[in-house]
Amino acid sequence: MAKPRISSIDGKLAEEFAVPSHVEEVKEKMAVFARHHAAADRRVVLITSGGTKVPLESRTVRFLDNFSSGRRGASSAEYFIESGYAVIFLYRHRSLYPYTRIFSNINMLDALKFSDGEGVSGNAEVVVNQQVLPNIAKALKRYQEMKEGKLLLPIEFSTLSEYLHLLKAAAQALSTIGSKAMFYLAAAVSDFYIPASEMPEHKIQSSNGPLQLSMNMVPKILSPLVKDWAPQAFVISFKLETDATILLDRARRALDTYRHQAVVANVLDSRRGYVVVVTPETQAELIITEEDVKNEVEIEERIVRG
Amino acid sequence: MAKPRISSIDGKLAEEFAVPSHVEEVKEKMAVFARHHAAADRRVVLITSGGTKVPLESRTVRFLDNFSSGRRGASSAEYFIESGYAVIFLYRHRSLYPYTRIFSNINMLDALKFSDGEGVSGNAEVVVNQQVLPNIAKALKRYQEMKEGKLLLPIEFSTLSEYLHLLKAAAQALSTIGSKAMFYLAAAVSDFYIPASEMPEHKIQSSNGPLQLSMNMVPKILSPLVKDWAPQAFVISFKLETDATILLDRARRALDTYRHQAVVANVLDSRRGYVVVVTPETQAELIITEEDVKNEVEIEERIVRG
Repeated sequence: MAKPRISSIDGKLAEEFAVPSHVEEVKEKMAVFARHHAAADRRVVLITSGGTKVPLESRTVRFLDNFSSGRRGASSAEYFIESGYAVIFLYRHRSLYPYTRIFSNINMLDALKFSDGEGVSGNAEVVVNQQVLPNIAKALKRYQEMKEGKLLLPIEFSTLSEYLHLLKAAAQALSTIGSKAMFYLAAAVSDFYIPASEMPEHKIQSSNGPLQLSMNMVPKILSPLVKDWAPQAFVISFKLETDATILLDRARRALDTYRHQAVVANVLDSRRGYVVVVTPETQAELIITEEDVKNEVEIEERIVRG
Repeated sequence: MAKPRISSIDGKLAEEFAVPSHVEEVKEKMAVFARHHAAADRRVVLITSGGTKVPLESRTVRFLDNFSSGRRGASSAEYFIESGYAVIFLYRHRSLYPYTRIFSNINMLDALKFSDGEGVSGNAEVVVNQQVLPNIAKALKRYQEMKEGKLLLPIEFSTLSEYLHLLKAAAQALSTIGSKAMFYLAAAVSDFYIPASEMPEHKIQSSNGPLQLSMNMVPKILSPLVKDWAPQAFVISFKLETDATILLDRARRALDTYRHQAVVANVLDSRRGYVVVVTPETQAELIITEEDVKNEVEIEERIVRG
C-alpha cells in the first residue's frame, strides 16, 4: 500500500533538505509572538518574500535562483501592519524590507550630509537630506511605531531548505492561534532542487566540459500546510507566470489541488499594475492606473485591503 | 583550416549573448573617463565585482547565479582610490558598493533618529545615530572626496551577457591609455550558460516533471582581453576554489594559458583571511591575523598595496 502523501512530504523534507540548526528556536519565537498578539485580539499574518537559493554544490559556489526583489512581500507587510495585523516576515536575505524599501534604489551616502552642529561623540553631525529622500521622516515614524508595538517579527532565509523548514515551523507555531492566522505566500519558491545525496561536494570544474544538470521536483508544501499543519488558517498563495494565456487556469488548478482560500495571479511584465485575486467562488481584477501611480498608490495596498 | 581562436570568441559573443543596448554609450563614457585621468597622470583600474546571472528562460523567472556579495571588489575599489587610482567599477546590480558597504548589514532605519531641530522643509530633522554607525562620518567624507575628484565610474550589470559585453567595451576603452590601465577581475563569472537559441521563452512548468538542463561553456574572455583588446594593460584575475589542494595548480595553469600578470588565488572558506598572489615568477601569501581584524585591517588593502 502506498504511504499517505502527507507523511511522505514530511519524510522528504527531513531526508533531502538540510534542517537549519536554529529551527526549533525560531519556531518557539514565532509561537510566542503569535500567542501574544492573538491574546490582544490581533490577527497574525505570515508573509513569505523573495526568491529561494538552490545550491548546486555542497560547498556552494553556484546556485539556481528565482527572480524576486521581494517588493511585493515588503510592501504588503507595511499594509498589513497599517490594517491592524501583526506580521511574521519570512524573507530572503538581502531582499527588500518593509519601510527601508523606499531607499533601496538610492545610494544612502548621496542622501546624507554634514550639518554644522556636532554630535554627542564630538564628530560632525550627519543628517539626512530630505530633498533627496522626501519620505524619510514618514517612513522612520512608521518604522518606530511598528517597533514600539513589536508588530513585525523578521526571520531570514537564503536557501530553499531553510525556506521549507522555516515555513513548516511557522505553520506549526501559528496553528496554536487557529483562525486568527493568515498565510500570505508571496515568495518565489523554486520548483526544482538537487538532493543532498546527488550533489557534488566541491565547485564544479569547467574543465570537465558542458554541464548536465538533473533536478528533482520540490515537494508541494502547500498541501500539508493547508491540510495538517495549520488547517484553520486563511491561506493566500501567489501564482506568477510569463504567459498570460495560462495564468487563470493555473490559479484555478492550484485552488482545486490545495483547497486553500485564495490565489493572487500575476504576469511577470505587469505584476506591479495588474493582479487577479481568485477564490473558489470569485475572481476580482485589481488594477493600478496612471493616476494611482501619481498618487503613490501601490497594488499591494489593494490586495491587502481587498 | 580552423578559424583563429580570437575572432571565434568575438563571433560567439555577438551571436549567443544579447548585446546590451547601451554598450556603445558606456564605452564612450569609459574612454572619456580613462583619458581624463591618464592625462592627469593617474592610473585607471577596471574592477569587476559580484556574481553573474545566467537566465534559464528568455522571459526570465529562473537563473543560475554565482555566490558573491561583491565585498572584495567594493573594498578593493576604496583602497585603489586611496592609492591614487581612478576606478571603473563594473559591478552586479545590488552587490556591495564602495563606502556604503560599511552599513550593508544594518537596517538603516535603526541607525536614524529624529533630532529636536527642524529641516528646511519644516519636517523634523532626521540624523544618523553615530553610536549605531560609528564610521559614518569618515565614510561620508571619503565618499564626498571621491565624488569631488570624479574618481569612481560605476557601471552596473546583472546578466552574464551584460558582463561580457561591458567588459569587452571597457577593455577597448582602456586600450587607449596603454600601460596606465589595469584590470582587476574580481567578479564571480559563470562558466556555463544556455545559448539564446536553446532557451525556452516562457517560465519552465514544473508540471512537466524533473528538469534536465544542458549548459554550454562560456568563452574564456580573458584570452582576447590580454592578447587583443588591451595588450599593454596590467591584468589581475581571481581564482576561487572550494578545494585547497587544487588551487595553486589552477592558478598557475591560468597564467600559462592567458599569459597575464597575476592571479589572486583563494579558497571559499578562508577568502577573507588568506590569499596567494601568483605571478609567473613569484608566489606571495597574504594573511590577515586576529590582530589585524581587531585593527579593521582588510585583506584587500594588502592585495591592492602589494
